Amino acid sequence: MDMSESMASEKKCLTGQCPPLQKEDEQVVKLSEGSGGKEMHRLIAEATSHFSSGDWKHTDEDSSLLAVNQNNVLFTTDSYVVTPLFFPGGDIGKLAFCGTVNDLSVMGAKPLGISLGLIIEEGFSKSDLFAILKTIGELSKQAGIPIATGDTKVMERGSVDKLIINTSGIGVAQNVLDEQIEPGDKIIVSGGIGEHGTALLAKRFELESSVKTDSKPLWEEINSVVHLVKQAKDITRGGLASVLNEIAQKEKKQLTIIEESIPLLGEVRALTEILGIDAYSLACEGRFVCICSAKHADAAVEKLRVFNTMACVVGEVQDGSDVIVQTRFGKKILSMPSGNIVPRIC
Amino acid sequence: MDMSESMASEKKCLTGQCPPLQKEDEQVVKLSEGSGGKEMHRLIAEATSHFSSGDWKHTDEDSSLLAVNQNNVLFTTDSYVVTPLFFPGGDIGKLAFCGTVNDLSVMGAKPLGISLGLIIEEGFSKSDLFAILKTIGELSKQAGIPIATGDTKVMERGSVDKLIINTSGIGVAQNVLDEQIEPGDKIIVSGGIGEHGTALLAKRFELESSVKTDSKPLWEEINSVVHLVKQAKDITRGGLASVLNEIAQKEKKQLTIIEESIPLLGEVRALTEILGIDAYSLACEGRFVCICSAKHADAAVEKLRVFNTMACVVGEVQDGSDVIVQTRFGKKILSMPSGNIVPRIC
Repeated sequence: MDMSESMASEKKCLTGQCPPLQKEDEQVVKLSEGSGGKEMHRLIAEATSHFSSGDWKHTDEDSSLLAVNQNNVLFTTDSYVVTPLFFPGGDIGKLAFCGTVNDLSVMGAKPLGISLGLIIEEGFSKSDLFAILKTIGELSKQAGIPIATGDTKVMERGSVDKLIINTSGIGVAQNVLDEQIEPGDKIIVSGGIGEHGTALLAKRFELESSVKTDSKPLWEEINSVVHLVKQAKDITRGGLASVLNEIAQKEKKQLTIIEESIPLLGEVRALTEILGIDAYSLACEGRFVCICSAKHADAAVEKLRVFNTMACVVGEVQDGSDVIVQTRFGKKILSMPSGNIVPRIC
Repeated sequence: MDMSESMASEKKCLTGQCPPLQKEDEQVVKLSEGSGGKEMHRLIAEATSHFSSGDWKHTDEDSSLLAVNQNNVLFTTDSYVVTPLFFPGGDIGKLAFCGTVNDLSVMGAKPLGISLGLIIEEGFSKSDLFAILKTIGELSKQAGIPIATGDTKVMERGSVDKLIINTSGIGVAQNVLDEQIEPGDKIIVSGGIGEHGTALLAKRFELESSVKTDSKPLWEEINSVVHLVKQAKDITRGGLASVLNEIAQKEKKQLTIIEESIPLLGEVRALTEILGIDAYSLACEGRFVCICSAKHADAAVEKLRVFNTMACVVGEVQDGSDVIVQTRFGKKILSMPSGNIVPRIC
């Protein structure tokens, strides 16, 4: 293709005279391909077809495992492109630190160090920048997880929207959490879902709400049940619906959850009703699903309630291949979310 | 501060009606603070004051070292915000892969795996995206360094300029290259400098030139001299001037180089003269400086000439604290570059 032509048209867009997309839809990247749903999974599959991952084993989409001289080393990366940067209960720095810590934690890996890649728009407020870095520094000290290395780039005004943060992380697992699940196993959710998504939506649409992001580092919580559970997976973009579908697809099992047992703050429920949004698709940043044998379920829930009193069993694993919600009126299939679920909130 | 006000004014900027910077200069991030020179070093020092790096040891600004059960684990991160994305001899994918491989390699660490964080503008051409991913895939296979894990984000049109790539990397070093240097040690440059910067400048200013980027993975080259040299450092943004000043400051030594011995393609020299640019500050992406005792210098140069015939000794370590260039007309101090050296080319 003619690079100069393409650059010129995109330049125009950056200066506010966005021309309509002239290429066929399938020839350009769509916003929905970054939203954690079906389209993104398709794009990633196409992208990764170019790569060899060598001896690294993809544990799920979020981290990879390599045995290094008998150590189980886990490696993960994530970029954060959040609007707004500050929201009730947190900021982009909190998301970026916790997100990567949590991707390691759900594999049973103690996070050893986090890298911090800052991409800053020229003219961005230094007081905002340092407030965000302070958030990260404090969380890092509280959690005892160091910021190991970093990188800073500054882009011309208009070339990036304020601030993007990439965090990557290394962890080491004594026992990697990837045991096979079986029919009869219990599905546990570690706390109320959708609070992060709700806090950001309320802020964006200027709705009154006291809901704060649930964002937090999960290593301590997961470490408390690491000997009891077979698998854990943090809930992020795409919400509970996405996580359960990913587990069902990977494990070739049916996951059946009881709608009335799903932990949900009253305010979250109210806001989803006002905005007509499915709570199952709402983002979390400090909640996870874990699966354990029936005999360990009570013990695991008890451990998790030390951290969040809403932790509970929400369903069980069965033979089959779908995610089923048992409502008061019957059963329905819970699909993998698709489209622009909620753009750029985690 | 009032967040909504700040967001509104920056929103305007993204739609082409950029208001003048209203805040005092020191209160906002400046472009020069991302250019690899003095201002960037100051910003990074201020930023990292918020963090604890725990047991990680900062080997230099680019990677960190942690002993994990008697393994020397190196960890590094870098983000790539290049314009144009495609240039003579390479593309942003090549830079992103090689840059992180090289940050590990200069510490004597065999790269075990690279992570890939893609941040894509909605509407970006899929054929360009997949061409870039193919570059990375091929380099990864050739070098035997796997893409271990990845992440993809898509941002709304106008929120990011086409494509940003973050790569992080893990390596393991048998012997970490951080031996103390001494007066009399020799300074070696692994090949002609400034070719990457020249290729991008020529492309951007539409000058005729056959110079291609020097970007390449350096592990094999560095591994061939790892037993001979005390330290190695890849030349990137800020060029040879930045690398030599970093070494001089860290080691509290004077580095004296002989101007006539600096390896430089004729075309690179010509372009720097036309544009009035200092070749010492021009970016490289596949060259490094290494320092070894005088007795190993010939052997090291011989090994390096297998990869690049322009590799040579350019000077030596002395007592003192500056970087000195010995020209035909006398000595001059080579300072750390400052200002917008060459924005966004690596």
